[in-house]
Amino acid sequence: MARWEPNTRERLEQAALDLFTEHGYDRTTVAEIAERAGLTKRTFFRYFADKREVLFWGQGELIRLFGEGIAGTPADATPFEAVGGALAAVAPVFGRERLARARQRTPVVAANTDLVERELLKRTKLVAAMREALAARGVGEPVATVAAELGALAFGTTFARWVELGDQRDFAALAAETLSELRTAAGALG
Amino acid sequence: MARWEPNTRERLEQAALDLFTEHGYDRTTVAEIAERAGLTKRTFFRYFADKREVLFWGQGELIRLFGEGIAGTPADATPFEAVGGALAAVAPVFGRERLARARQRTPVVAANTDLVERELLKRTKLVAAMREALAARGVGEPVATVAAELGALAFGTTFARWVELGDQRDFAALAAETLSELRTAAGALG
Repeated sequence: MARWEPNTRERLEQAALDLFTEHGYDRTTVAEIAERAGLTKRTFFRYFADKREVLFWGQGELIRLFGEGIAGTPADATPFEAVGGALAAVAPVFGRERLARARQRTPVVAANTDLVERELLKRTKLVAAMREALAARGVGEPVATVAAELGALAFGTTFARWVELGDQRDFAALAAETLSELRTAAGALG
Repeated sequence: MARWEPNTRERLEQAALDLFTEHGYDRTTVAEIAERAGLTKRTFFRYFADKREVLFWGQGELIRLFGEGIAGTPADATPFEAVGGALAAVAPVFGRERLARARQRTPVVAANTDLVERELLKRTKLVAAMREALAARGVGEPVATVAAELGALAFGTTFARWVELGDQRDFAALAAETLSELRTAAGALG
């Protein structure tokens, strides 16, 4: 990249969210997204492989944080405690300044099957990252997979609650509450 | 449909699987699938909305069976037992005569992100169907969601084991074994 372009990803994402909200995902082109952001189509494709990815660029970093969060919990932590460590590690990403964008993004993704499918693919990668981080701590199968699946469920539930309640409650507190509920539920399956 | 076309869906699916295996999903057209099956492109689109759906047409019925299986378990069954009832209800679908096709399908789906994403979307619908069937039995949240997620995990794991071992073991036995392992794992999360 020849020039310094501050916050290029964020600008393209915000332009895309605005256009998807106004005209719908299908009826928005990459050229229009780039133009709205004051950039070129060529620049867009330097950052993103396709139109969908503009809404998912932060998730690779997020998945990395989940893995690190699990790795960083004490050696004697249970699988659920390790997942709790992962949720605590990602909580700072979901500061109040991100709330408006998250609120705009949620209905845009829900309205389009292509976006829902990409979101599910990222969820699968999140489960895999948590499972591998748990395995690296010596958690065997299928406990690592069950903990990772419930970790992804905890994250999805926490995120939805944060989108709703993020003005009053912070992500870390919602995450701890959600995980505690899932822990109780896992013990009530019979 | 003017004419009687026995097993049209199966013929199109088998033709698609053969072509996807030989040439790859991306390089196969709907016209080629129809031709291989001895049918027209027009007929293909009478049955399937797009090229992807030819591999997923059985899943609506499967999801219905999961819901019915849960509804059909005794009123005093625990959530895990109800999920076990669902797996037992779908087991007859996975008879030995289906094994060759399942073995051919698995690597085809895994090789293409579009197909993986569609599979994940169907999994989400399966979770929703089980969650709703559990809710209809009076199972509250988040227990119903946790049971449904673990039910989908049990199904995915059982299916993978059946693809591998289906010559010697039947689906119902593999399902019971898998669910029992997940039940133990859910109790070992700490």
